[in-house]
Amino acid sequence: MSTGLWLVGARGSVATTAVVGALAVRAGLAARNGLVTESPAFAEAGLPPLEGFVFGGHDVTAMPLAKRAEALGQAGVVPRHLPAVLADELDQVDARIRPGGRQEGETQAEHAARLAADIRSFAQASGVDRVVVVNVASTEPPAEPHPAHASLDALETALEQGATVLPTSSLYAYAALQAGSAFVDFTPSTGARLPALDELARRERLPYAGSDGKTGETLVKSTLAPMFQTRELHVQSWVGMNILGGGDGATLADPHASLSKTRSKGRSVAETLGYEVVAPVHIDNVPDMGEWKTAWDHIAFEGFLGVRMTMQFTWQGCDSALAAPLVLDLARLAARAAQAGESGPLPALGFFFKDPVASSEHRLATQYDVLVAWARDLAGRSA
Amino acid sequence: MSTGLWLVGARGSVATTAVVGALAVRAGLAARNGLVTESPAFAEAGLPPLEGFVFGGHDVTAMPLAKRAEALGQAGVVPRHLPAVLADELDQVDARIRPGGRQEGETQAEHAARLAADIRSFAQASGVDRVVVVNVASTEPPAEPHPAHASLDALETALEQGATVLPTSSLYAYAALQAGSAFVDFTPSTGARLPALDELARRERLPYAGSDGKTGETLVKSTLAPMFQTRELHVQSWVGMNILGGGDGATLADPHASLSKTRSKGRSVAETLGYEVVAPVHIDNVPDMGEWKTAWDHIAFEGFLGVRMTMQFTWQGCDSALAAPLVLDLARLAARAAQAGESGPLPALGFFFKDPVASSEHRLATQYDVLVAWARDLAGRSA
Amino acid sequence: MSTGLWLVGARGSVATTAVVGALAVRAGLAARNGLVTESPAFAEAGLPPLEGFVFGGHDVTAMPLAKRAEALGQAGVVPRHLPAVLADELDQVDARIRPGGRQEGETQAEHAARLAADIRSFAQASGVDRVVVVNVASTEPPAEPHPAHASLDALETALEQGATVLPTSSLYAYAALQAGSAFVDFTPSTGARLPALDELARRERLPYAGSDGKTGETLVKSTLAPMFQTRELHVQSWVGMNILGGGDGATLADPHASLSKTRSKGRSVAETLGYEVVAPVHIDNVPDMGEWKTAWDHIAFEGFLGVRMTMQFTWQGCDSALAAPLVLDLARLAARAAQAGESGPLPALGFFFKDPVASSEHRLATQYDVLVAWARDLAGRSA
Amino acid sequence: MSTGLWLVGARGSVATTAVVGALAVRAGLAARNGLVTESPAFAEAGLPPLEGFVFGGHDVTAMPLAKRAEALGQAGVVPRHLPAVLADELDQVDARIRPGGRQEGETQAEHAARLAADIRSFAQASGVDRVVVVNVASTEPPAEPHPAHASLDALETALEQGATVLPTSSLYAYAALQAGSAFVDFTPSTGARLPALDELARRERLPYAGSDGKTGETLVKSTLAPMFQTRELHVQSWVGMNILGGGDGATLADPHASLSKTRSKGRSVAETLGYEVVAPVHIDNVPDMGEWKTAWDHIAFEGFLGVRMTMQFTWQGCDSALAAPLVLDLARLAARAAQAGESGPLPALGFFFKDPVASSEHRLATQYDVLVAWARDLAGRSA
Ligand SMILES: NC(=O)c1ccc[n+]([C@@H]2O[C@H](COP(=O)([O-])OP(=O)(O)OC[C@H]3O[C@@H](n4cnc5c(N)ncnc54)[C@H](O)[C@@H]3O)[C@@H](O)[C@H]2O)c1
Ligand SMILES: NC(=O)c1ccc[n+]([C@@H]2O[C@H](COP(=O)([O-])OP(=O)(O)OC[C@H]3O[C@@H](n4cnc5c(N)ncnc54)[C@H](O)[C@@H]3O)[C@@H](O)[C@H]2O)c1
Ligand SMILES: NC(=O)c1ccc[n+]([C@@H]2O[C@H](COP(=O)([O-])OP(=O)(O)OC[C@H]3O[C@@H](n4cnc5c(N)ncnc54)[C@H](O)[C@@H]3O)[C@@H](O)[C@H]2O)c1
Ligand SMILES: NC(=O)c1ccc[n+]([C@@H]2O[C@H](COP(=O)([O-])OP(=O)(O)OC[C@H]3O[C@@H](n4cnc5c(N)ncnc54)[C@H](O)[C@@H]3O)[C@@H](O)[C@H]2O)c1
Ligand code: NA
Ligand code: NA
Repeated sequence: MSTGLWLVGARGSVATTAVVGALAVRAGLAARNGLVTESPAFAEAGLPPLEGFVFGGHDVTAMPLAKRAEALGQAGVVPRHLPAVLADELDQVDARIRPGGRQEGETQAEHAARLAADIRSFAQASGVDRVVVVNVASTEPPAEPHPAHASLDALETALEQGATVLPTSSLYAYAALQAGSAFVDFTPSTGARLPALDELARRERLPYAGSDGKTGETLVKSTLAPMFQTRELHVQSWVGMNILGGGDGATLADPHASLSKTRSKGRSVAETLGYEVVAPVHIDNVPDMGEWKTAWDHIAFEGFLGVRMTMQFTWQGCDSALAAPLVLDLARLAARAAQAGESGPLPALGFFFKDPVASSEHRLATQYDVLVAWARDLAGRSA
Repeated sequence: MSTGLWLVGARGSVATTAVVGALAVRAGLAARNGLVTESPAFAEAGLPPLEGFVFGGHDVTAMPLAKRAEALGQAGVVPRHLPAVLADELDQVDARIRPGGRQEGETQAEHAARLAADIRSFAQASGVDRVVVVNVASTEPPAEPHPAHASLDALETALEQGATVLPTSSLYAYAALQAGSAFVDFTPSTGARLPALDELARRERLPYAGSDGKTGETLVKSTLAPMFQTRELHVQSWVGMNILGGGDGATLADPHASLSKTRSKGRSVAETLGYEVVAPVHIDNVPDMGEWKTAWDHIAFEGFLGVRMTMQFTWQGCDSALAAPLVLDLARLAARAAQAGESGPLPALGFFFKDPVASSEHRLATQYDVLVAWARDLAGRSA
Repeated sequence: MSTGLWLVGARGSVATTAVVGALAVRAGLAARNGLVTESPAFAEAGLPPLEGFVFGGHDVTAMPLAKRAEALGQAGVVPRHLPAVLADELDQVDARIRPGGRQEGETQAEHAARLAADIRSFAQASGVDRVVVVNVASTEPPAEPHPAHASLDALETALEQGATVLPTSSLYAYAALQAGSAFVDFTPSTGARLPALDELARRERLPYAGSDGKTGETLVKSTLAPMFQTRELHVQSWVGMNILGGGDGATLADPHASLSKTRSKGRSVAETLGYEVVAPVHIDNVPDMGEWKTAWDHIAFEGFLGVRMTMQFTWQGCDSALAAPLVLDLARLAARAAQAGESGPLPALGFFFKDPVASSEHRLATQYDVLVAWARDLAGRSA
Repeated sequence: MSTGLWLVGARGSVATTAVVGALAVRAGLAARNGLVTESPAFAEAGLPPLEGFVFGGHDVTAMPLAKRAEALGQAGVVPRHLPAVLADELDQVDARIRPGGRQEGETQAEHAARLAADIRSFAQASGVDRVVVVNVASTEPPAEPHPAHASLDALETALEQGATVLPTSSLYAYAALQAGSAFVDFTPSTGARLPALDELARRERLPYAGSDGKTGETLVKSTLAPMFQTRELHVQSWVGMNILGGGDGATLADPHASLSKTRSKGRSVAETLGYEVVAPVHIDNVPDMGEWKTAWDHIAFEGFLGVRMTMQFTWQGCDSALAAPLVLDLARLAARAAQAGESGPLPALGFFFKDPVASSEHRLATQYDVLVAWARDLAGRSA
């Protein structure tokens, strides 16, 4: 099965790292570290091999992919020498990246139609069996509610009337589904999480997944919170502080955009523990951190006879290096899900997300068990 | 079901905290925080209630239990006012603590017989249905291998001949099993983990469990290591540093005794990950830490395309406050297992231990699932 | 020399801890740990001994001092048994605490006159040689500028006209100076830092000092920043995160009040290094922290050939236990300065403050050298 | 003034980084970050400019300097592109590196004579005004005491008799002084710290300095300890844990060699505070750390009324990037001291060392003041 991976935000750090990495792995220039779906547990699931992927996408910047890759090499996100070695292939991908922004005078309906047409042309030109769209564009502020979100009918009527009713991420989701593609939201933006789009996905028999890749502090939270829970240690407060630079840091310096992120980050602890916890989360843009993020968490908990204890951790990660393999994993899994006929939300992919659609399970180990069971089930289904 | 809990090392920090805690909970003076078996998952398992426990034990020090409790109150391990409130009940328990050390001129066989007689007298005098022996005495150095450990026959022949062949912890295990009691080793000492004693346990149809309560650094290790494993993040090194005071700190200041502990602590990471990792563990006696322990761990790992990242954590715990509820949990579980006719090692209790007998499963979440499944199974069995 | 210490915010944590501590030291119930002026370097400076201090103050709460002390004992800020032992003496101090808030219908001039009268009555009744006023009341939001702040004339004219022009902390400073007392501001509030009040202090030949006691994160900052500076290691960012509970935590949960604090905290690093640094500071109210504060700082710096390195620290302190001895030190030093005829700001006391008046020296070691030199100079002056 | 810098251990990480850095700075390819003597405070001291330095040295490995530099570029110790740019110049330095090990059949006297001859030839061939020898070779185990160390007479008699009495580092110091060069020991090895060598230095009117460059954990210790001291906060314990890889890590994996280092690291805290402190220091070789070191320190201290608090820090440094500029600083300062006629130990250079010769001053800020004062004094002396 050959698969097209269409990246929204295709020239960003995460997208570029994913493309460089896939090309490098394919060329035998890098190991498969960090790719969840390359472990033996997924061997029988019939996932499309990385080798058969073709890449394209939308972005609003014109900075060529090869140049972005070069910068990521300098920053230590990808091996220094790789971008030069892969320059030609990166240029080929770059040629398949289309402008994503709304054009002067375009209605939102026309905008959506153009985006969907881009995806369809890509599918045809590249001859792939199936396209998966993954959103890795800049995080949006939380969306304003609108009545047109409530049903597909309401949405289509509004769009036909020339109204602007969807946040951009949802417009991409709409276009993806219209173009017959599964949609995965790696960001905390709204994406497909609107009743109208859920309806569309089910009507088109397409699956969607999200939201917000779980790659750092929240990953650790969802690993540690069950320890406190099963040991009956009562968490009193869980404070998180994140510092990061790069494009994501700059975006999140806007308190409005940051709100989507802190909301998404804040849920897992209380939902896992089953009680409310004082759990403030801060995100600071510290430009000198570049593509690196440091998180510090302070957890206060109460044990037997009310004794108070604390745990702290620091996580020093390279965000895009953590995110990129998951984007590839998700593309493989979503493509296979589409092929196997799944439609609507894919709660079994919660392992990858801070705020999983159609699931309130945040415990990482349990999420993994669910994922593996689902993959096993796929194994038995028609290819 | 009334149960006797016979504590080896009954005047130590862990034992005293367990007794104070059980008495306080029973008297409605404290919540059940930190007690794993008080969660709904264990409600149907038929475990003997804390309320029905009678306490006794062996120790080699004469310091009265109430005085030890007083000191733990000063140190913040138990609420300051509790020891005075419970003084009379503590004195009653203290009256049931027997000298555990070997007496002048005693052979090891005679020593074992005396210890077993102490346990039997306790059972009779207190009229309990069943006694569980839990070892919370000072950690021993690793034991010397001896041919008499290989089978029950060889062991009994050697003891009859007046030989000294068992490390003290194993002598207690031998005495416990002879007295018809299940045996739980909360320390890293040898305890029941000798072929001869395993044979004895099976012959007597008694269960045993261990080893080395998992309450701090190793607890966190066994929680975090699966995260790295399922995310395919390759751990390159995992360094651990522990500082603690108290009786346990003083014992572990002896490099010989400390070796049992660092061996026990060192296993889980490599066994979970499935490959060798540079994982040195240090333990330092820092007397001013008193009953508190701080652990610092530094984990270096490699992600996608070989990018190197790190995670660090510090754990600031009160060791006895973490251990004591587990001792009570284990007593309840082992008593129920004995009643249900289980014999030999209890791998399902691995959730509680650094170095679980008859199991190489270290993943905390998986251990919890196993424990809960086992408890559910118990529910269906005769009381 | 007998001295009166008049505490604004006399029933707060810092004030209560200072009073309990002074009484305990005097009664031989506690050591002089944490008291800077008890070190040999100050032996010859002619400072009034702690033994000769009488305490009084203003507050707006009615909670008795002995009860506040009891709560601090429970929280581990002062030894548990002390409050009961000192109950009678605490009640005597409590009887000298006067209501500080503005009364119905009072103009600000009348309010100030009443506060000054309280201080004068205290001086007379207790027969002390001299009174020092120290502000340890809740932190105010940053004050609005007002033309009446510009000169003593303008201020007095405005007050005579019944206007409300001073922030509360400055009203206390005004009253103190009117009553012939030196004024020390241990908070980041405006206090005496207005041209009008500076003029008043000089006219009355009274010294004043401040602002904002340096007891935690900023203390460490002012210690570490010179290391980076003298080693020519270029600091790129210095991020600080503070979590605390208690009364101070609750006050600073108000972003307005917190602004005074983060401004005060933010200055030292750039002023020491001599260049601008990305240095965000956060303060979170985490009620379960009680009287304890944890700060986490992350410092990124560049060394030889541009190599990037990091340092992190966590500080886990009991704020009032750190602040209280400094309040006593400052009272001793300010009393002696007044006696020696110093008037206007006391930059030599910068060692104690986050934002020292009349000084931009933040390097702790240098501040200490300046302080000791000043104390030596005092030694030679008339008592 | 042109100066020769003769590096013992010239192909090690520190030496190579120093040479690469000096060449890069000289060529305008790098800034002067991290060079203490480039700050304005040293502008008038008459120090020889980096531009006039010629490099040579001894080593026991044959790995070419350019190759070592290449590896340091890969490891991120020096900018990746520099080694290639500087390859020719590095080869020229490499050609001036002589074998340092003892040859088959050589007595120690002959060995010393050969080493001294190498230094003299270098001086002549390069035409420099003066040579400074800096020891940056692998750390030795602590030396065995020997009667021949007690005086120059005793030493020379023993050497003449063909005896082997000096540890290698002292042999280098002896050779350096014989060759008319100042000697600086950047390692914890014995070096010039023997009465016999002190006598030789004074007789030859040559200065020497050491020991053990202060670049990480101890640097921070010597910065923080005075804070606790001047604030009268009583330190109860100060635990240090160091993990590092590279050549230094491998050497210190030998507990014997590591002993020199932990001794050297252990002194500063107690000497600064003036009382004994529980202060264990560990060093672990963790090969995957490469040229990077992480230190974690845990400090427990007691404040007012005995309240116990803690501070922790982690330091994540690139050891050679921290050490190399200090080696260049020391070469400049020692050359100027020799020129100015100083002889014997140079306690004014204590700022640079963990275990400063002829000084027990460890407080970094004070050491800096002493250094700057000394540099100012040099300014007035003949060039
Ligand atoms: N570990 C991680 O990196 C991680 C984890 C979870 C979520 N995410 C999310 O992934 C997203 C990408 O992160 P990044 O670090 O690559 O950020 P980035 O800023 O480097 O890249 C974002 C890209 O999106 C593009 N973009 C912006 N608006 C667009 C639009 N309307 N249409 C198309 N493209 C648009 C930008 O031009 C840019 O190239 C962010 O939303 C981030 O929050 C990342
Ligand atoms: N979190 C934890 O506290 C924890 C976790 C895992 C394991 N453990 C283990 O539990 C044990 C108890 O820890 P602790 O902190 O209570 O130590 P402790 O030193 O306070 O108590 C040990 C007790 O054992 C007694 N003892 C020593 N030798 C004995 C003998 N031969 N017979 C009978 N009693 C003997 C001592 O007198 C003392 O009262 C240790 O082995 C420790 O390693 C504790
Ligand atoms: N380490 C430290 O504790 C530290 C360091 C620097 C500065 N400070 C400052 O010291 C002050 C006191 O801290 P705290 O922890 O004791 O706080 P707190 O909340 O416990 O005490 C403040 C007291 O001030 C009183 N108060 C409020 N408004 C008043 C008014 N108008 N007149 C008189 N009294 C008034 C309150 O009733 C309360 O009793 C705060 O401003 C804090 O920022 C404390
Ligand atoms: N921050 C720092 O890097 C730092 C700080 C203080 C002290 N030091 C000390 O500096 C020294 C060098 O550290 P490094 O990281 O460069 O180590 P390294 O192992 O990279 O280099 C040591 C060099 O010394 C050479 N050598 C060994 N024995 C020798 C001998 N007998 N004669 C001549 N050369 C010999 C080795 O071949 C090697 O090239 C070590 O002793 C270290 O403890 C380093
Ligand atoms: Na959800
Ligand atoms: Na100032």
